[in-house]
Amino acid sequence: MSSIEIALTPEQVRAAGGRLAVEAARFTGYGWMRGTSGNISEVVSREPLRLAVTASGLDKGELLATDVAVVGPRGEAVAVAGVEPLRPSAEAGLHARVAALTGADAIVHVHALNAVVAGRRWPGGVLLRDVETLKGIGRLAHDDEVVIPVIRNSQDMEELGDRFEAAHDPRTPAVIVADHGLYAWGTDLKHARHVTECVEWLLAYALATA
Amino acid sequence: MSSIEIALTPEQVRAAGGRLAVEAARFTGYGWMRGTSGNISEVVSREPLRLAVTASGLDKGELLATDVAVVGPRGEAVAVAGVEPLRPSAEAGLHARVAALTGADAIVHVHALNAVVAGRRWPGGVLLRDVETLKGIGRLAHDDEVVIPVIRNSQDMEELGDRFEAAHDPRTPAVIVADHGLYAWGTDLKHARHVTECVEWLLAYALATA
Amino acid sequence: MSSIEIALTPEQVRAAGGRLAVEAARFTGYGWMRGTSGNISEVVSREPLRLAVTASGLDKGELLATDVAVVGPRGEAVAVAGVEPLRPSAEAGLHARVAALTGADAIVHVHALNAVVAGRRWPGGVLLRDVETLKGIGRLAHDDEVVIPVIRNSQDMEELGDRFEAAHDPRTPAVIVADHGLYAWGTDLKHARHVTECVEWLLAYALATA
Amino acid sequence: MSSIEIALTPEQVRAAGGRLAVEAARFTGYGWMRGTSGNISEVVSREPLRLAVTASGLDKGELLATDVAVVGPRGEAVAVAGVEPLRPSAEAGLHARVAALTGADAIVHVHALNAVVAGRRWPGGVLLRDVETLKGIGRLAHDDEVVIPVIRNSQDMEELGDRFEAAHDPRTPAVIVADHGLYAWGTDLKHARHVTECVEWLLAYALATA
Repeated sequence: MSSIEIALTPEQVRAAGGRLAVEAARFTGYGWMRGTSGNISEVVSREPLRLAVTASGLDKGELLATDVAVVGPRGEAVAVAGVEPLRPSAEAGLHARVAALTGADAIVHVHALNAVVAGRRWPGGVLLRDVETLKGIGRLAHDDEVVIPVIRNSQDMEELGDRFEAAHDPRTPAVIVADHGLYAWGTDLKHARHVTECVEWLLAYALATA
Repeated sequence: MSSIEIALTPEQVRAAGGRLAVEAARFTGYGWMRGTSGNISEVVSREPLRLAVTASGLDKGELLATDVAVVGPRGEAVAVAGVEPLRPSAEAGLHARVAALTGADAIVHVHALNAVVAGRRWPGGVLLRDVETLKGIGRLAHDDEVVIPVIRNSQDMEELGDRFEAAHDPRTPAVIVADHGLYAWGTDLKHARHVTECVEWLLAYALATA
Repeated sequence: MSSIEIALTPEQVRAAGGRLAVEAARFTGYGWMRGTSGNISEVVSREPLRLAVTASGLDKGELLATDVAVVGPRGEAVAVAGVEPLRPSAEAGLHARVAALTGADAIVHVHALNAVVAGRRWPGGVLLRDVETLKGIGRLAHDDEVVIPVIRNSQDMEELGDRFEAAHDPRTPAVIVADHGLYAWGTDLKHARHVTECVEWLLAYALATA
Repeated sequence: MSSIEIALTPEQVRAAGGRLAVEAARFTGYGWMRGTSGNISEVVSREPLRLAVTASGLDKGELLATDVAVVGPRGEAVAVAGVEPLRPSAEAGLHARVAALTGADAIVHVHALNAVVAGRRWPGGVLLRDVETLKGIGRLAHDDEVVIPVIRNSQDMEELGDRFEAAHDPRTPAVIVADHGLYAWGTDLKHARHVTECVEWLLAYALATA
């Protein structure tokens, strides 16, 4: 763990933790965070890059504002004075990579069943076009070929990050990790929530009409 | 924006906004308003035609009574003294058209998955007959051929309105916009809620027994 | 309407109405009472036969204890001193017939989608056997052939009641009305709730494994 | 019933009952405990083996802390001074067997539809591999062949226990009882909850991609 940072205050971290807890409870209610799966993050500093991310191994439906870890660009835990250091998920490394690469300030990772089923059905990417809900992820409702990339799963976050970087389309705020789950992001937590909801709807629709 | 109207009071608009917020939260709970999709409206004046409609771009599960816009017959924003002017959805134009054409005083537009799947499967309209729930949309449980019209999607509300007018059956209080979602309406918000629920049930039933 | 009865007190009727409201809210939450569909009843007197039944035309998710009607053996409204007379559903006639024929003291009628789909798929009755949940409707988990009868729909409650009587198996506390919904019953409202839940589960299971 | 034990206090039993009630309400909300089906237990003593288990015949969505029975190694009711003796489910015998054999301190039995459907489809066991959620049941996300055993149903808990013992894989914290439901377990109630949720997700995934 790096030396203690003084740029972030405990209040900032707890405030982010509270926001993450609310979003996590919502997605848990949707059945997208079964067990202790999934994690949600928010960028709390750009220079240096720091994310507040839900702590690992906890039930995502009953997080407290203090159930939050702070990580750096490789997902490594970063100590913040006045904040009890909690273990971040290994996946925090991919969150940081998404934040760095896309400029997103909030990232959602959920084990939504439809996303994993769609990734299995279309390992080369999920093609979507001509549906109004595409506007909810910043694309067009007509004549816009949208592909949700599908990347192979890995336990090595650097490898997974490289695959993400290779597959990522700057116009599409979501990626499916095959045999695993969905990553989606936005300009803030509420936007990321809306993108996640729309992507899941679109994947359910793709499966229902395949 | 037209000149400020004095016929409507801020209390009326907020009261309508509160009613819209409650209905929107319900439909959000059903998963029919993912992201910021969908909108709900209530006629607050007939002469001239004015609708209170949920404001655009917000999460429909957490609207406040003040998250409401007032629009005229073409969905254009109408200023009301004492009411902060919010941007209505472009789709407010279709709401107004539905209100004018059908006489309905409440209109619901939701991205219910079953409606969009049914519209894709039956682009010429969804045929329903001989099922009790048809009574919930004002039709008969026996020997009554009901077709939920399906119209092509458009971003041009005038074009969409023309298609609606051409397809609309006065006996059937719902239309599917293909690749988009469902419109349903009633004599007041509660009636529109019940019609929407019954239409969605009927479409789910049609898909399950196709 | 018959002459006013003094055997029932307003307190008894309201108490029954409160219990019916709670059950109706639960089933509404399951999505089995869309629109204003379905109704629930409780026998409040055997001699003469009187049922408290949810009032017609209301949203079953927000009933009050006063949203209750009292009916006699043919579903006819019965006046009770001190109770505002509300219109019972026409279907109250079938509730009364079920109560008289089976001895059940609580009857549930819901538009559960799986029941209507199963009735369409197996118009001669739904065969169930060798599944533990059958114990939840008073049958055996092994080697017990259970048939949920399916009767044809009708708007004439006497005709529907005759079909019910002809099809009803005293060992099986549920009947599907084709193209309509499910009737299930028990010794009290809680028992009827449990039977209804188990029958719906069994029908979902039958459809999923057909 | 054996002689009264003094090793357990009423406070311990009620505390366990309260924890069981919370978990049962959660699973009831998921639709996995329809009617009065399913039961949940917690080991409250190892020497001698004693489990607190949800009482039989009650709605699992509205248990109180006092709706709990205490059983011994064969599921037999054990009297505890100061605790009203409630009837345990016959299935408590299998809970005790699971606790003895696996060392688990919390056991969940639910009638999750996907589990029963999967057991019917794959009576020889449900094969799962190469999916991240396997980590939620203590297995690997890659190249780990996991089989959820499926055993034949029986009303004789000793016979069912023998089948469980024969089929059980120490690396896999779940067993499907065919035509019946799911058993899953963990080191405490929260862990058992998470395992149950992950197993159900995995079975839904297996069915959706079969």
